[in-house]
Order: sequence, then C-alpha cells, then structure tokens
Amino acid sequence: MLTRSDVKGDDSLVKIGIIGGTGYTGVELMRLLGPRSDASISVITSRELCGTPVDTLFPNLRGIIDLKFSEPDNPALDECDVVFFATPHSVAMQRVPKLLKAGVRVIDLSADFRLKDADLWQRWYGMRHECPELLAEAVYGLPEINRDAVINARLVAVPGCYPTAVQLGLLPLLENKVIAEDRLIADVKSGVSGAGRKASVDGLLAEVAESVKAYGVEGHRHFPEICQELNRVSANSVGLVFVPHLVPMIRGILATLYAPLRAGVESDILELHGMFERRYRKESFIEVLPLGTLPETRDVRGSNRCEISISYSEQSRTAIIIVVEDNLVKGASGQAIQNFNLMFGLGETTGLMLPALLP
Amino acid sequence: MLTRSDVKGDDSLVKIGIIGGTGYTGVELMRLLGPRSDASISVITSRELCGTPVDTLFPNLRGIIDLKFSEPDNPALDECDVVFFATPHSVAMQRVPKLLKAGVRVIDLSADFRLKDADLWQRWYGMRHECPELLAEAVYGLPEINRDAVINARLVAVPGCYPTAVQLGLLPLLENKVIAEDRLIADVKSGVSGAGRKASVDGLLAEVAESVKAYGVEGHRHFPEICQELNRVSANSVGLVFVPHLVPMIRGILATLYAPLRAGVESDILELHGMFERRYRKESFIEVLPLGTLPETRDVRGSNRCEISISYSEQSRTAIIIVVEDNLVKGASGQAIQNFNLMFGLGETTGLMLPALLP
Amino acid sequence: MLTRSDVKGDDSLVKIGIIGGTGYTGVELMRLLGPRSDASISVITSRELCGTPVDTLFPNLRGIIDLKFSEPDNPALDECDVVFFATPHSVAMQRVPKLLKAGVRVIDLSADFRLKDADLWQRWYGMRHECPELLAEAVYGLPEINRDAVINARLVAVPGCYPTAVQLGLLPLLENKVIAEDRLIADVKSGVSGAGRKASVDGLLAEVAESVKAYGVEGHRHFPEICQELNRVSANSVGLVFVPHLVPMIRGILATLYAPLRAGVESDILELHGMFERRYRKESFIEVLPLGTLPETRDVRGSNRCEISISYSEQSRTAIIIVVEDNLVKGASGQAIQNFNLMFGLGETTGLMLPALLP
Amino acid sequence: MLTRSDVKGDDSLVKIGIIGGTGYTGVELMRLLGPRSDASISVITSRELCGTPVDTLFPNLRGIIDLKFSEPDNPALDECDVVFFATPHSVAMQRVPKLLKAGVRVIDLSADFRLKDADLWQRWYGMRHECPELLAEAVYGLPEINRDAVINARLVAVPGCYPTAVQLGLLPLLENKVIAEDRLIADVKSGVSGAGRKASVDGLLAEVAESVKAYGVEGHRHFPEICQELNRVSANSVGLVFVPHLVPMIRGILATLYAPLRAGVESDILELHGMFERRYRKESFIEVLPLGTLPETRDVRGSNRCEISISYSEQSRTAIIIVVEDNLVKGASGQAIQNFNLMFGLGETTGLMLPALLP
Repeated sequence: MLTRSDVKGDDSLVKIGIIGGTGYTGVELMRLLGPRSDASISVITSRELCGTPVDTLFPNLRGIIDLKFSEPDNPALDECDVVFFATPHSVAMQRVPKLLKAGVRVIDLSADFRLKDADLWQRWYGMRHECPELLAEAVYGLPEINRDAVINARLVAVPGCYPTAVQLGLLPLLENKVIAEDRLIADVKSGVSGAGRKASVDGLLAEVAESVKAYGVEGHRHFPEICQELNRVSANSVGLVFVPHLVPMIRGILATLYAPLRAGVESDILELHGMFERRYRKESFIEVLPLGTLPETRDVRGSNRCEISISYSEQSRTAIIIVVEDNLVKGASGQAIQNFNLMFGLGETTGLMLPALLP
Repeated sequence: MLTRSDVKGDDSLVKIGIIGGTGYTGVELMRLLGPRSDASISVITSRELCGTPVDTLFPNLRGIIDLKFSEPDNPALDECDVVFFATPHSVAMQRVPKLLKAGVRVIDLSADFRLKDADLWQRWYGMRHECPELLAEAVYGLPEINRDAVINARLVAVPGCYPTAVQLGLLPLLENKVIAEDRLIADVKSGVSGAGRKASVDGLLAEVAESVKAYGVEGHRHFPEICQELNRVSANSVGLVFVPHLVPMIRGILATLYAPLRAGVESDILELHGMFERRYRKESFIEVLPLGTLPETRDVRGSNRCEISISYSEQSRTAIIIVVEDNLVKGASGQAIQNFNLMFGLGETTGLMLPALLP
Repeated sequence: MLTRSDVKGDDSLVKIGIIGGTGYTGVELMRLLGPRSDASISVITSRELCGTPVDTLFPNLRGIIDLKFSEPDNPALDECDVVFFATPHSVAMQRVPKLLKAGVRVIDLSADFRLKDADLWQRWYGMRHECPELLAEAVYGLPEINRDAVINARLVAVPGCYPTAVQLGLLPLLENKVIAEDRLIADVKSGVSGAGRKASVDGLLAEVAESVKAYGVEGHRHFPEICQELNRVSANSVGLVFVPHLVPMIRGILATLYAPLRAGVESDILELHGMFERRYRKESFIEVLPLGTLPETRDVRGSNRCEISISYSEQSRTAIIIVVEDNLVKGASGQAIQNFNLMFGLGETTGLMLPALLP
Repeated sequence: MLTRSDVKGDDSLVKIGIIGGTGYTGVELMRLLGPRSDASISVITSRELCGTPVDTLFPNLRGIIDLKFSEPDNPALDECDVVFFATPHSVAMQRVPKLLKAGVRVIDLSADFRLKDADLWQRWYGMRHECPELLAEAVYGLPEINRDAVINARLVAVPGCYPTAVQLGLLPLLENKVIAEDRLIADVKSGVSGAGRKASVDGLLAEVAESVKAYGVEGHRHFPEICQELNRVSANSVGLVFVPHLVPMIRGILATLYAPLRAGVESDILELHGMFERRYRKESFIEVLPLGTLPETRDVRGSNRCEISISYSEQSRTAIIIVVEDNLVKGASGQAIQNFNLMFGLGETTGLMLPALLP
C-alpha cells in the first residue's frame, strides 16, 4: 500500500485538502475527519468565503476545525497526501490531472469520474469531459464491491447517494442470478440536503415542508451511474425504472426496491434473506435486518451504516428490498472517508463507528 | 332521489349526525360541513368528551360549530337524515342496522362495509362481522366509479385513503386493458395523520420527524380493499405489491404506481395520457396534469382535489402514474361529503371547492 | 362610501389588480379573493413570469384563477377599482401616485407607507422615500383601531405581521393605562414564510428545519412601526424590547408579550382579562380566550382570526399576553382583504370566515 | 477522589447501571457511554421490555450496546460503581437509599433530588418525598457552578433542561450584581423530546408539527428549581417570569433571557459581554459567542456544548441573553456524563467532544 506520507514527509499524519468546503458534504467531511488523530486537514478552499473562519460558517465545528477557507488554487493543496473534492460537477475534472501529477491522491465526491463513458457523461451533464483519459483509471468507490481496487487507487470516484442505496440493495440478488434484471424498480425517497447548500426557491422550507413529490421521472443523473454499475454484476442487461422523491426532512435516503424473480427460479424469503446475510456478513457498515424488521432512516442518521431489509410477495413473486442510509454519510462523505481509510491503510472503520443520533 | 327531509320534516336543512367526532376525520367533516347553509350538524358524539364543547377540543371550529359532544347513543341520531361514522373499525357495524331501520342513511368512513366478503373481513380485522347481510347492499363510495349507485344508497362505505389514490391512478389503464394486471406495484407515501388521533409512542413527533419508513409490507388492511375493487374493473385478476410508507408531514398521500404494459400492447405516453384525460374529463375533483408536470401533495392540502400525472419508461415498457390527494379530504372526509352531496341531491361539489392551502 | 365601480363602470364586480403576484402574500390574496362572487381579479403582474399561467406556479389555484401573469406596467391596472401591492418594499412608492391619480384605490402590503416619518423610513430602508407627501394620507390598515379611516381611504398601508400581533396584544392594556409603557418586551416566534418566496440559503429546509434562532436583535424593520403605532395609543412614550425568532414551520406567529403593571396600579387577572374582552367584544377576527386557555398557531392556520390569551404573574406584577395569528392571513393578505371589504362596503368579514386547517 | 473500582474490583472499567433505559435520556446515555473504553454499561433496566435486546428498541445502538433490558430490581445494580436514573420523577427517591448503602454512587436525571426543600417538592410533585434526609447531601450537578462538590458526591441531581439554560445565561450578570433580580424574564423554546418518550396525543406529529405554543404559564415544575438555584448566587431574591414554549422540532432549547440593568448601574454591551467571557473562559462546554453573533439550536445538536450570546438594548437598559443547548445532552444525559466524568476522575470532557450534527 502506498501512502504519500511514506514518500514525502516525516509527518506521521496524513495531510488532507478539501476543495469546496462550504456545502453539506464539506461540513460532513470536516465533522468526521476533524476529531481524528491520524489525519489532519491542512487546507479547505472556498472561492466566496476565502478568509472566513470555517467555524463561522459551520458553528458545529467550533473547537474542531481551526482553519480559514482559502482560495481555490491554494498551492498547499499540492503538498497534501490526498485532496477531497466536495464540489458540484465539472470542478474536479479541471483540477485532478494536475494534482495527480503532483503525486496527490484524489477522492472526488462529485460526478466527474463516476461514468466510464465520456460521451454518456457529456449527454447527461451537458458539457465535454475535460480528462476522459482518466475515466478508466478512476476507481468507483463502493468498497463493498471494489475494496481491492480502492486500496491502491490514485483517483476514487465516490458513488452518488442514490446509486449507493440501490446497488447495495440489489447486488446479492443480481449476483445470485435470481431476479429478472430487466424488470427492476427503484422507488427512492430522499431528504432535501441532497440538493445541496445553494440558494434556491425550490429548497425553501416553506416550499418543501409538509409535502412529498417525485422529481426527475424523465431522467435523473444518477440513472446512468446505477445502470453502469449494476450491469457490471448482472448476467443480462439491466432494465430499471428509477423514481426519486423528495420528503420533508434534512437527511436520509430510503430506497424501496422491487425485484421480480426470474422466470423459472424457485425461491423463498428465507433463501433470499440468506443471500443478503452471506453477501454482507463481513461488511462493517452493512446491516441485514432480521426477517420481519424494517428500517427507518433515523436508525442511521449521522452514521455510515446502511440497513437492509428483505421481504417477499409470493403472490407477485417479487422481492421487496428496503435500504436506508444517511445520504450525507454512507451516501457521500462517510463513504469518501471509508475509501480514504482504505487508501491510506488506516483501518476501514476508523472514525466512522459513531452511533446514529436517535431521536 | 330520496331524502329524509322530503319525508319527515318541514325543515329544509339536511340534518346530520356524526358518531365519533374527536378524530381527524371528525374535525374535517365539521370544518367542511360547518359553514354550509344547506345542511346542519345536529349531533356529534364522543364517549370520552361527552359534555365538552366541540370547539374546546378543536379551536379551529370556534364560531363554526356551536355544539357539545354528546353520548354515543344519543337518541337524536335517529332523527337525523344521515349519520356519518368517523370511528375506528367495528363501531359502525354494531349500530348501522338500527339506524337504517329508523330510516337514517349512513355514510361510514371506517372499514366496516368496504369489503364484500365477510370472511375476508374477519381474516383482516380479527373479529366476526356483525351484519354481513348488509355488505352486499353497502355502496363503495368512490363516486368516480359508483356515482349512480351512491345517489340512491342507504349505506355508503367511504373508501380508505390508500385505496382511493391507487384506484384513481390505475382505473383508466385497467379499463383500457393495456397493462399487465398481475405485475402492478403501488409504492405509497402518507403523512402521519392517517394513523389517527390516538395516544401512541409511534406517532410522536420525536419518533417520526426527520425519518421515513415503510410499514405493513407483510400485509396492510387496505390491500384486500384495493384488490377487490381493482378486480371489478380488471379483465384478469390483479396481482399487486403494495408498500405504504410514513413520511414526516401531517397530511397528504402520494402514490407512485408502476404498471408494465401488457405483452403485445403497443402504446406511448401520448396515448396513455389521453386515456386519463378522457376518463376524468368530467370529474370535478380529478385533475390530470399536463405531460411533464408532476404533482406535490401540498397542491391539494385541505382540498378534495386529486392530481394525477402519467409518465412512461420506454426502456422498461412501464407506465408510472403519480397520484396525490389529501388523505383526510379526498382520502376520507371530503370524499364522504362528496357522497353525501350526491345522496341528498345537493350538487356534488357543494362546499368542496376551496383552494388548497399553499404554502 | 366611494367605490370606483359607482363612478366608472356598469360592472357590479369590484375590479382588482395585484402587482407582484408570485410571492406568498400574492398567492394568499388569490386564494381568498379567487372564489368570491362580489369581486374579480383582472390583472396579476410579475416581471419574471410574464405570460405564465398563474396556476402553473401555484397549482392550488387551478380552477380558481384563470389568468396569466402580465407585465408590471400593464395599463389595465389603471382600469381597476383597487390595486394590491404584494411586492417587496420600494416598489409601491414608485407607482402609487400615478394609480391614485387615475382614480385607483391602493392597498399596499409592503412597508412603503407604514411609517409616517420619511426620514425614519429612509434610516431603516436605506433609500429616500419617493412620495413622502402621501405618508400623511396613507391609512394604517389595522381595522381594529382605524376602521373609520380605512373605510374612506384612498391608500391603505397594511401592517406588518409582527406589528399586527404585538399591537393587538398590547392595545387594551395601553388604552387602560395599567402597564409601564417603558418596560415592554415582545418575544415573537414566526414561521419561515415570513421571509418570503425568494431564493436563499438561509431559508432552505436543510438550514432551518430542526432548529430555532433569534434574529434581528440589533434592530428589525418592524420595530419603528410597532413603536410608532403603540405611541399613538400610549399615554407615555413606549420603551420596547422586540426579539423576533424563526421556528421551523411554514406559517404562524406567536407573540409572547411581557407587560409589567405600572407602579401604583392595582389589578388582577380577572380585571386584566376583562379589559381584553371589552376591547374586542365586537371584533369578528379577535378571539379573547377564556382564562387558563392558551392558543397555538395551528388554531388559526389559514384563517384571518387572531387568538389572545392573558395571564398574570403576581410575584412579578407582570401581564403575559400571548397572541397567535397566521402571518400570511391576519398578518398580511387576510388583513389586506379585511381592509378591502371595508373600503368597498362589502361586509368586513366577507370571504374571511373559513375555519383554520387543523391538523 | 473515591471511585468504587478502587475499592471493590480489579476491573479497571467503571461499571455502570442505568435504571429506566427506554426513554430519550436513556438512549442518549447509551449513545454517549457505549463507545467508551474507560467505562462499561453492565445493566440496563426496563419493566416493560425486560428481556428485549436494547438495540431492538434503539437500532442506532446496534454494534454499540449488546445488552438486553433486565428487570428493574436486578441485583447486579448493587455491583455497579454508579447507577444513572433515567426515569420519571418518584422512581429514584424510592431506590436511592438502598443503592447508596450498597456503596453505589448515584446520578439522578429526574427531579427527585433537585429541590432542597421537601415541602416545596411535595407542592410541585403532588406526593410526599420518600427520603428528604438525602436532599441536603444531594449535589446539584451543574458543574459550571458546583464542580468541586460534584467530584466527591455520592448522589448527584442532574439539573433540568430549562434550568440549565436559564442559569448559564444569567449567572455572570447575577454574580456581577448588575441586573435587577426582581424583574427577570425567561422566554424559552424547546423541542418536543423534552416531553419524553411516552404514549400521548399531545406529542403526536400531527398535533405539534407546524405549530408553536406556550404551556405551563401558570406554573412549570422547573420554575422552583430555577429560582432556588438563582437565589444561591443572587444578592437579592429573584423575581422571574418563566414561559416555556414547544416548537416543532425534536431536540434543542433556546432560552431568550431579558434582564434589565439594576437602577444606578452603568454598563454597556462590551462590559456585559466581558463578564460572560471571563466567567466561562475555562469552561469546555460553554461558548460565549462574539458580539453580533447569534446562536441556533442546531449548532449544538447532539453535542454537550452550550452557546451564549449577549445583546443590549440601550433604550430599555435591558440585557438580552440567548442560550442554546441540546435538551437531551447538556440539558440531560451529556450533563449527567459530565458529572460522571468528574466523579470518577475520568477527565471532564471525555466522550463529550463530538461535533454537533449540522445540517
């Protein structure tokens, strides 16, 4: 395992830079990394808030992060062991090549390196990809599938929040080839922090509280990502209907997945449940619930855990898988740190075992 | 059309009784009926709050309802033209026969007369039905299907909140025989008022706010009701997966329905959309949204309207129908009043055209 | 009473224009005015959404308002009997003089004509007032104080949401000269719709849900308005500490007012309560609660009613008055319509007696 | 410093028992104590859930607490070094004497040992106190005042959530004798978890969401506790108006305190602010905010920190102090653990420095 500190410094702490520290994934990275004794955040950038103390913007970090936001092209970034991008899409792809060249490893929480196909990326994001040559190298950072690749990666693309939940809920059944891959449905409910911390009318409490809505039914940017990754483990090409919904809460994703058994397959709830238990037995962050127990998003609020229940409708021969995660933790910053831990040999669960906040 | 006032009284107002006025469907009945000039609430019962002014419990009714709760067996009920049951299941079935005998028409918001099969009822509600002989006569009060039967009914069973949304969303496609009835999925999200106004831990704000969960995956009491009614319009027997979810808001239901096209059927979004427009063109409370527009539950908060959008996934050959309603209005008390209006020839929309409260 | 329709038209409906129809006070004006049979909205303007159907933006108005937003300087405004300004401050003052000249009466929901002193206005709003000559004529539209003046007004300044609650809660005690005017405290809690429907980070659900905060402690623009109006009824100059707070809900204001008895005054809770009852006995929209009953904002959600409770701490010789209103109704659009009803002789309560939505 | 483990066991971990583990203070104790390496929970009792795994009730504790609830009179409690009572009032007073006799130290989160006067206790709690002889010994566990006494205490009464906020906000000004103690006002806003985890109608989301209310204006049980403790540091007897409010959120308390300067005292905002800074300079959990900065409850969600701002109205010569805390942490379980840390010499901040969860 290669770590920059082995090479460059005498400092025993892993040096971290964060580009774009003013959003929700940024503050979560800092909440989770700030208290650690094996790593140290040395740069946090923000174009708009350059010079402002981080804890002025995020008072929860008082006493935890004693830095000011610095300009986006702070040269200290090149001195970091790793840089996290907590930016909207299209920022990372402009800066990653130079960082890699400087020997910095990169963990990108945005969408820039998730798709392998630059044309597909362009179709969904409406612009040309700036470094398509890195797409093949970028490791899709879902450790429950790609752990080995992550360990040695220079560049990790952290999965989207929806794709994380949908993949973790479908993998065991796809790998066991028991479901009709062309008839999958993912009905997913998300808290509004998924839309990010940016001025809008649509995200106002007065607009979204006390209401539920679907959105992106005609096409959501996480759709090609989900299909790409499911196709890697699926015997046949996946056909998926994906409908995201906004529910009036800050955090949390609950994915309800409907997977009909493949024609000819005989199975039952015990067998299906067993597939999940076996698949995730060694996973620290995946909890397969006992039969008859259903998860709630609050079970994992603020934690990197993901809970999965499995039910089965005999009449419809359909498995119903319910997955909950915190969209900002296992769906973003916590997963990024899980990757980071693997990349730097720090113990996969380090700093990530905090219990959820309930109530 | 028969109305009791024609027969019994000189009073031109329809005389209304409400049994069980302390729950959310009770207060909604009173909010909507209280201001009317063509009908008058003369009795509201409550075992526990007998003697308490109604507006002490429900301050929103100050100046609207000037009555006290009376004992459940108030003889004045027999003098009413109509009695609404806003009670938990098993109350109405004990009292309806006597009321009918007294010439009182009955609108039951509970589940007692929704199922046609007394054995099925017993299986789901865990007790013997008290008057199975009335099940055949009871009219299922979804006016968009049963309008004519409602008009002359003595006894109306108001549909459940979930069944209303699911049926309205699937009817046009079932009637047009374009979908595979055995592969339907209804993923439904409800506000917590659906659980009623009763002491519980599960409904505490500290338990349900900031969280989403599924429940009743193994079987919800609205499931047999939905199947029974869908089967009446479906060519073949319906196979449905129904998963209700609780979202942290007071009111509102959003049903996301997934209906694959039947093998061999060719169709497209325009044709499917047209089926909805034609089916509901004359319905005052059903709004089929323009293509590309999605509903939110707040669009109908406090109103009797139901909004429906239709989308279509070509890749999966699946129609995606989204239905929103206010669970306490079109899903309960508003629908009850819509039936009442029909039964007493008062104009189907009377008192029900108030705009929703937004924001 | 003068009404434009007497003079200009044969049309029996009062013709209404609304400038700035895309905010929360705009949609509330339309919700409350739309269903009326004695008045008709003929113009609704919006610079940004010119040409868009109103019910595309506000689906709750489907079937209620069948207009498109028009350009802000639509000449049809001059043909209206009355124009409502539902705009941010500084818009009305630029356009009111011309409308008045055209014989149009004006009801301004913004702050432009609330203060009588143009210099004071400039100090709080940071710009010069455009028509200081109209400040004296403008009638402060709190009908519970200024009813007679409102009836004949050409120009009404609708009070702010906070000032409405604070004034209604203190008036009876000030008029009876029992409290120490120099030691008043108003601790007020508001839902977030008070901040308006405009893109911001501060109003995002993810920022304001599950949290309470005070704001504007150093000075809020409603402060001079409150003091100006309290001073008109107070024997001595008022000294007030006013602290507004944001609570995580859409609508509603609850003001907790602390008023110590004046030195030398002897009183008790019964006498104080009596002062409120006498003062508001004839007011249709003010409900003085029975002793021992406390209001909640939901009691008046969506309604023009205002509930007031009075308590008394003997130990501290301090009256504690609690006032609730819906900030968008009695605190804005409902109050504007109450003024409108008075100005046009339509019956003060017309269209405003809808019960609150509870739950 | 005496610790039981010094005396009784060879086990280096402090052995903890929790009586009443099914409420919100119980789950918070476990969330914060569970991950610690210097202490170990050995017993958690619950009458109703005896035999149920703790993490079945509280899934956030999966992997953290591997115990079942045991019967309330589990003899293992006598073997503990310390027992926490996370029970409603009147439970602890029946069991504390026996535990103390067995050499177990006690930290009571309920109200049983907060008041020094048994008659006063009886007046507010409606029953006779069972062990009035212990009231004098019990240490009021607000470490910022009573640190030395806590260290050696056998029995600690953890302050109520409201009293904690009010005292921390008034102490510096009382100690400096600058405010008129007889004219204090505490307007406090609390999330609903303060009402506990028990079945009720009043706490239902459908009852309390989207609404604010005051309660207990005529007298709240925290009132005598606040007065008792303020009187200990005040030159003259305190006169306080205390009005608690419920706001629609799970956690958090914001206290807005109004303290007029004493007649004859000259001061200004800088001086007042300085009093707070000096008073709390060495306190790890108290953050005096810079002038002009106001706190929000979310700043401290899930953390043991307390933030305080100070403002000053010159016109009214009144200091306005705003205090935020998490009612379940610094207002209950976190504070209990802060006491525990002091009592067992474990480092006052151990296990309590987690950043708040924001957003």
